[in-house]
Amino acid sequence: MLSDKILNASSVVVVGASKTVTKRGYQAIRILLEEKYEGAIYGVNPKLESVLGVPCYARVSDIKEPVDLALITTPAASLPEVLEDCGNKGVSGAVIIAGGFGELGAQGKELESRMVAAARKHNIRLIGPNTSGMINMHKNLNLVGLRNAPKGNIALISQSGNMALTMITEAKIKSQVGFSYYVGVGNESDINFHEYLEFFEKDPNTKAILMYVEGMRDGRKFLQQAYQTARKKPIILLKSGRSATGKRSAGSHTGALAGMSEVARTAFKRAGIIVVEKSDEMLPCAEALANLPPVRNNNIAILADGGGHATIGADELTDLKVNLPEINGKTKEKLRAILPAAASVRNPIDVAGGADDNPQVLAQCARILLQDPNIGGVLVVGLFGGYSIRFSESLAFAEEDAAHQFGKLIKETGKPIIMHSLYNFAKPHSLDLLRYYGIPVFDSLELACKAIGVLAEYGGYLRGYKSKVKFVFDMGAKARTRGQEIMHSARAEGRTALLENEAKELISLHGGMVCHDCLAQSPDQAVAMAAGFNAKVVMKIVSPDILHKSDAGGVRLNLVKPDEIRQAYMEIIGNAREYNPEARIKGVLVAPMANEGLEIIIGTKIDDQFGPVIMFGIGGIMVEVLHDVVFRVLPISPYAAGNMIDEIKSVKLLDGFRGQPPVDRKAIKRLLLTVSELIGSYPEIEEMDFNPVIVYEEGLNVVDARVILKKP
Amino acid sequence: MLSDKILNASSVVVVGASKTVTKRGYQAIRILLEEKYEGAIYGVNPKLESVLGVPCYARVSDIKEPVDLALITTPAASLPEVLEDCGNKGVSGAVIIAGGFGELGAQGKELESRMVAAARKHNIRLIGPNTSGMINMHKNLNLVGLRNAPKGNIALISQSGNMALTMITEAKIKSQVGFSYYVGVGNESDINFHEYLEFFEKDPNTKAILMYVEGMRDGRKFLQQAYQTARKKPIILLKSGRSATGKRSAGSHTGALAGMSEVARTAFKRAGIIVVEKSDEMLPCAEALANLPPVRNNNIAILADGGGHATIGADELTDLKVNLPEINGKTKEKLRAILPAAASVRNPIDVAGGADDNPQVLAQCARILLQDPNIGGVLVVGLFGGYSIRFSESLAFAEEDAAHQFGKLIKETGKPIIMHSLYNFAKPHSLDLLRYYGIPVFDSLELACKAIGVLAEYGGYLRGYKSKVKFVFDMGAKARTRGQEIMHSARAEGRTALLENEAKELISLHGGMVCHDCLAQSPDQAVAMAAGFNAKVVMKIVSPDILHKSDAGGVRLNLVKPDEIRQAYMEIIGNAREYNPEARIKGVLVAPMANEGLEIIIGTKIDDQFGPVIMFGIGGIMVEVLHDVVFRVLPISPYAAGNMIDEIKSVKLLDGFRGQPPVDRKAIKRLLLTVSELIGSYPEIEEMDFNPVIVYEEGLNVVDARVILKKP
Repeated sequence: MLSDKILNASSVVVVGASKTVTKRGYQAIRILLEEKYEGAIYGVNPKLESVLGVPCYARVSDIKEPVDLALITTPAASLPEVLEDCGNKGVSGAVIIAGGFGELGAQGKELESRMVAAARKHNIRLIGPNTSGMINMHKNLNLVGLRNAPKGNIALISQSGNMALTMITEAKIKSQVGFSYYVGVGNESDINFHEYLEFFEKDPNTKAILMYVEGMRDGRKFLQQAYQTARKKPIILLKSGRSATGKRSAGSHTGALAGMSEVARTAFKRAGIIVVEKSDEMLPCAEALANLPPVRNNNIAILADGGGHATIGADELTDLKVNLPEINGKTKEKLRAILPAAASVRNPIDVAGGADDNPQVLAQCARILLQDPNIGGVLVVGLFGGYSIRFSESLAFAEEDAAHQFGKLIKETGKPIIMHSLYNFAKPHSLDLLRYYGIPVFDSLELACKAIGVLAEYGGYLRGYKSKVKFVFDMGAKARTRGQEIMHSARAEGRTALLENEAKELISLHGGMVCHDCLAQSPDQAVAMAAGFNAKVVMKIVSPDILHKSDAGGVRLNLVKPDEIRQAYMEIIGNAREYNPEARIKGVLVAPMANEGLEIIIGTKIDDQFGPVIMFGIGGIMVEVLHDVVFRVLPISPYAAGNMIDEIKSVKLLDGFRGQPPVDRKAIKRLLLTVSELIGSYPEIEEMDFNPVIVYEEGLNVVDARVILKKP
Repeated sequence: MLSDKILNASSVVVVGASKTVTKRGYQAIRILLEEKYEGAIYGVNPKLESVLGVPCYARVSDIKEPVDLALITTPAASLPEVLEDCGNKGVSGAVIIAGGFGELGAQGKELESRMVAAARKHNIRLIGPNTSGMINMHKNLNLVGLRNAPKGNIALISQSGNMALTMITEAKIKSQVGFSYYVGVGNESDINFHEYLEFFEKDPNTKAILMYVEGMRDGRKFLQQAYQTARKKPIILLKSGRSATGKRSAGSHTGALAGMSEVARTAFKRAGIIVVEKSDEMLPCAEALANLPPVRNNNIAILADGGGHATIGADELTDLKVNLPEINGKTKEKLRAILPAAASVRNPIDVAGGADDNPQVLAQCARILLQDPNIGGVLVVGLFGGYSIRFSESLAFAEEDAAHQFGKLIKETGKPIIMHSLYNFAKPHSLDLLRYYGIPVFDSLELACKAIGVLAEYGGYLRGYKSKVKFVFDMGAKARTRGQEIMHSARAEGRTALLENEAKELISLHGGMVCHDCLAQSPDQAVAMAAGFNAKVVMKIVSPDILHKSDAGGVRLNLVKPDEIRQAYMEIIGNAREYNPEARIKGVLVAPMANEGLEIIIGTKIDDQFGPVIMFGIGGIMVEVLHDVVFRVLPISPYAAGNMIDEIKSVKLLDGFRGQPPVDRKAIKRLLLTVSELIGSYPEIEEMDFNPVIVYEEGLNVVDARVILKKP
């Protein structure tokens, strides 16, 4: 947990204090004074005695009073030395403005390491470098060259100063929301995203956390923290750098690993994060989530006055996977009683001019709808706030009264209302009243839909998070002694690849259905094993020195008769010796021929940012031509394993195709969970590849399995 | 072509004139007077002598002077009679406000038919019914209850009054664009979308046409007109009613067929229409297209000041399929010469603070970029307009100078510039100057990207439209006498399904590769035909009364020897007689067994709104499980046929899979064009289904073909 002395510092020193008006070292002191920072301020500049009345010192360590935080505005090269000085003083944190570190290549990286080493030595935590700074709005601690940011309940974490500027400007102009904190994470050299998240989770002034991310140093720790935080406070995140050009731009800008792919998006969502795709959506979603209760049942009613808005709203909410349920009979009756005959009381509800002479009708409809237990929230679209502008000024009072009714409804019912209004631009008092009650008002119909959509998404997360994993491995807890022996013996032989029979034994140890105990070391053993299967068998050479078994003449298929099997054994051994006279030969694997069934593929790899990741797909065309695969950051819960299967585009193939019976989904799910358990049991594993696995109406067969260990 | 007397009427009568202030018949006259309509105004109300000084008559036919257009505000039921009266006077057009027609079901439809019949009898053209009205901004002819709409160069066609209100409000508040016309099409009872399009194409005040559509009466005529119009003026269209709920909402609102699917979107794009997905995008796209030259080569440079905006912009433009080309060496050198060392001169260009003390640097960069023949347009993102706000007021003059430079660059280079600015809200003079030059300024980064994206899309259309079809069949031009004989003989026998051999002969007549001339009528004929193929053959019963040949024992496969073939012939005939003793038996089809290859499916059907449509997919799993099919409105050009093939998600299967050779794409393309030609040659055809077609490394085989004729 970050010390309070960093983000809630009681005293600040500006290193690089200056009297030159255009310099950051002057501006920083001026803003602290102007915005009335609650704590003590000091400057460091050997040539100055004071700046704007703030006393200056030659070194940080010359200051007598305690100093919590340093804002360092001097160039990159000075950092190791400045941090030594800060360390000698016992400073807890430093905000480092300078760029010119990791984002500039090898030389910059070396400087960055030296800077971090100096900080670690003295237990100084670093914000940045290459950051626009940090603001604590509730202490008026503003270390950014940005004035008059609105105060409020959203903590903003951004990897781009311009995106922070965008959010702050938009908040001032378009809404009544504001910020508790802003942190520019910069290059994340020391403090990482997850530490800010943990801090804001505990911060009493913060109700929602808004993030702009280009890349992350430690994605897994972030997921673990987000899982904890999202249950308590909503997290809204935009991740840019999707495209190749976007990635390059992000890399040159923050030096971050921006290569996060589809893996990231799914993982963020599993951790309970609200992932948005457009910068336009960031603040509207944060505003809704910070101020309104979530939608508890994913059921929304649209309340419209006119067709076009209703139709577009229905399309958008459907795209956002929100239900627009049929209105039940009693609720319909109540609506009909107050609406004109031309109104539609199906969802979307269209009052069809029924509010033209009394806008309170809209609030009455909202009440009727929210009192229906089946409706989880109401989206009002169209003209509210403008009836007084469009029809008669005298309606302004009725609109204001309606606004109070809308506002109170939220408290009474614990359900949210979102407002779209064409007349937002005119700033009628009724719309300000709505904002007073925490109801966001949007002039964009699509943003209004998105805002209620994320309230439904967050409600869904809160309903279901208990069934989810925390992205934490209970490492080794389920490891078996025999499994560890397999790893050790492979490593003892200098191998990074397990033998096929070893890999299969490992799967079997953890409950996967494979035939493994079948390494024949003589022709007679092979015959005896084959007899046990009572089926045609396949025989394969087992040797750490022969990777491509077929090329080495090391595979024979469809064998039944004892003579065939004996002869095959001899030939396989003979071919292997001829192929590689040095090869260590462990024996010949004997396994029943797999019956025809549906081919699937399961694999794992280690992602740069998230660590172990699992992949699942249906074999053949689906994977090779359509790239129809799903990924999950490991470990996975049974719930996530089920979702992986359902998310495959070709999932219908599992239900049987052209007269085939459906295949055993439970067996697939079990194997996915076995893979998750294997990764959590043996930290030695680098990657696995089960390909193909053949699935039947009942059960499955891991035909080939490859397990690669990390280099010791 | 619509008469000028309708949308450019020189005289108007308000039927239902009223002295009651809240009535439309009063408001309409008031607005015409207030907005200073250039023409003559009359009222009709038997009980009044005048309204606001406008003379009133008992009937339209009582007016002595000529009357071009009637605005009818009386209820639905009065319409047939009122139109009789208008007809007697010789009125050319009527705007019908009342709802209560087709959108309310059978009774409403009947009233609508009577109304239309009355209008047709007197050659009166109808706008609406169920419309908010019509405005001709340049004549001040405002027949809508909406004041102060901004005048400009965009013609707005909307099927929702509220969406028109949204566009007009947004134009007033957020941009400096305005409208030449607004037409509410309502139920499209008489004048259809395409007629408005044709009119606005010729209108000198209109530079772009903006449309909100829920459903269309005649989609094909619209496509034909759009193809003509889009070459001259950009058309921007939002189609709502994608979702089931959205469709229901649209249906209850306009009574229109809202069932347009993916077919519509592709067809609109082929016709050159700019299809947008969000209502937020409508006006920004119209503004850009009305005022700026298109991007000619799909190559855009992003000019940024800071990382976040650059990264998001790159992601968005990549999603929009716009190229962000590498900047070439000489252009890079020129940029480096005026930018600081920290700047990035790769695309996106990031000036990295290089404009902080002189915003003109941005205009200089834009000049360097637009002078590079490889760059087709520039998107400026970030702070322009706000350097004077953020850094120093004195920079305002430099920003204004830069704005003039940006504006002139567009004329000099014929290339567009789009501006994103965080400081749009502050309304700095520099941004107004940009608008004066036609450069749109957006506070949304995503909308700025979309605006330059549609300029690139429209540029692409203008480059390529010559290779496209006009959605017009040259009906019957390529029909063959033999083809017509086949149709006639089927109809003569009272059949709507062609026999398999007839269907195949038809394909063959139009250049498709099938074996058709092989209807055996005796065992010996069958043997002789089989001998000609020199391959295993399949034999199938041919009878108009047996649809399910296999069920009737009417199919035999893999036959080679003459005896087998003779026996199969006898058995097939015998089985058929047993299956249906009444069946008319035409003989037995003998065809070579199809070799293994890739299965595809081609079909046609008649879409409610667009007429004949073709479908193509790869057979088996791809169609049945993944629904991986593409549709095109017919006829198709060779270009469209090629695109259909490329758009299949599983297109890689055509390149060969797991060691198979690639299949003959040219043969598929030829068959698609044959199908298009068949539909264009024989208006009798209702639908066709070629399933399966087997494609080989060279050539293909239409294994089964079904052709259904329209009921005569």
